[in-house]
Amino acid sequence: MTIENPVAEHPFDTDTRVAATDTPGRFRAELSPRWQALGAVVNGGYSVALSLSALREVLAHPDPLVVSSFFVRPGHPGPVEIDTEVLNQGRRVSTGQARVTTGAGDIVCTTASFTDLGRGSDETAGFSTMPDLPAPEDCIDPLAGAPMAEATLTEQIECRYPVTPGWFAGQPTGKPHAEFWIRFTGGRPADTASLALLVDAAAPVVLELGVPGSATVELTTHIRRRPAPGWLACRATTGHVAHGYHEEDFELWDTGNRLVAQARQLAVIPEGRHKTARS
Amino acid sequence: MTIENPVAEHPFDTDTRVAATDTPGRFRAELSPRWQALGAVVNGGYSVALSLSALREVLAHPDPLVVSSFFVRPGHPGPVEIDTEVLNQGRRVSTGQARVTTGAGDIVCTTASFTDLGRGSDETAGFSTMPDLPAPEDCIDPLAGAPMAEATLTEQIECRYPVTPGWFAGQPTGKPHAEFWIRFTGGRPADTASLALLVDAAAPVVLELGVPGSATVELTTHIRRRPAPGWLACRATTGHVAHGYHEEDFELWDTGNRLVAQARQLAVIPEGRHKTARS
Repeated sequence: MTIENPVAEHPFDTDTRVAATDTPGRFRAELSPRWQALGAVVNGGYSVALSLSALREVLAHPDPLVVSSFFVRPGHPGPVEIDTEVLNQGRRVSTGQARVTTGAGDIVCTTASFTDLGRGSDETAGFSTMPDLPAPEDCIDPLAGAPMAEATLTEQIECRYPVTPGWFAGQPTGKPHAEFWIRFTGGRPADTASLALLVDAAAPVVLELGVPGSATVELTTHIRRRPAPGWLACRATTGHVAHGYHEEDFELWDTGNRLVAQARQLAVIPEGRHKTARS
Repeated sequence: MTIENPVAEHPFDTDTRVAATDTPGRFRAELSPRWQALGAVVNGGYSVALSLSALREVLAHPDPLVVSSFFVRPGHPGPVEIDTEVLNQGRRVSTGQARVTTGAGDIVCTTASFTDLGRGSDETAGFSTMPDLPAPEDCIDPLAGAPMAEATLTEQIECRYPVTPGWFAGQPTGKPHAEFWIRFTGGRPADTASLALLVDAAAPVVLELGVPGSATVELTTHIRRRPAPGWLACRATTGHVAHGYHEEDFELWDTGNRLVAQARQLAVIPEGRHKTARS
């Protein structure tokens, strides 16, 4: 007889669970306080992952392929409803929409196409390679000595940087670019559903321009492959700031040198606090 | 007394007009046969532009800022209804959704945030530059001697390439990248509403891998600035093909060396006809 130690479930699994209701397509869920960013606002990527849990219940394919979310109102911990709608069920791709709502209105509106990433060749052409990083154990955890209590998200997800980010040390570099490792704390493997959270879980690289913060208006994530277990390498870049808006491109690579997700967001810098910067 | 010659309206203006109906938020429009891509399917970017015309009627801000469209079913010329819904009206940003539908179901579902790009500094940081192209008059119009009758879109929009694309000459280069000029035929200036069409109006660069075609699943466009009149420089790149899907990144720059729009789409290659290619 083999007795295994019970393995504690990772908060990601607990906190993205949805429950069906008597209304077709409507689910009940809880925005957990364990995924807050600074400002005690629920992380956008987490609310997207919750939306994908609901969509997976109503769409025929297992993997999110392309996910676009508009962050309409800030989300705070507490009960929510998720209303889903199927837009199309095709042979290769199915598409639906999920809206996370409270009494005060929609928090996030997500449209997503799902597919089966277990089918077909996983690589036929690739024209770039993964970030060239030291091993995670040779990298720095900037939060090791300085936990960010309000940003509970940082307890669920860990990052390892080759050097401490300039903004973190109070010395923004002027270069809005970063390469680093990411994973769920304790090593829970990433799956295609969780990639849409991981692309939005690190600090925005625009902080290297000395801006005080950034709020996502819209986030699109392409899920390209099922990731291998282990750390994922990240490449984050902002190329243009104008009219108070900026984009951030984000890549996730598994240790097999395979791009597993590509994301781009359009974000807004809080008004009146934006310092001019140029590399 | 000054008599001016009447200036013919460009088909873009005629063909993106929407008419209010008695149902609040619902508009009537016509998918014009003048914007067909190969296969006599209406160009996706055109159906997005039509959606934005409807959204502009219901949202408080003048410029689309970020636009995400899922192409649920192929669109064919004929009458459509556009149902809009306002998701949020904020001070800086307002967000809404538009669905172009026929009796057979939704063709395209577009969510978009609008803002006022006449406000605030138009550039505070930029980390790349426009494509380095010969003047448009020194470039090649690949269609000059070989019009594509079915693709009526090519009559409304003109492109100028520094060299004839390999795929066009039947010799794909293996490099899914292109830089070229684009504008409305006759020189109608682009505005923020039309940029969402122009980012989807050229041939996909994945054709340089020898694939027979590509169909857009989702297209996200960031509109970053109001463009100056004149030709716009394009930079199109595909970095990864896997499981039959690929992304295409697309930049539009005005002649003032300013990025005016950035787009990314996730597209699917028709099954069973994909040749392997690697640069």
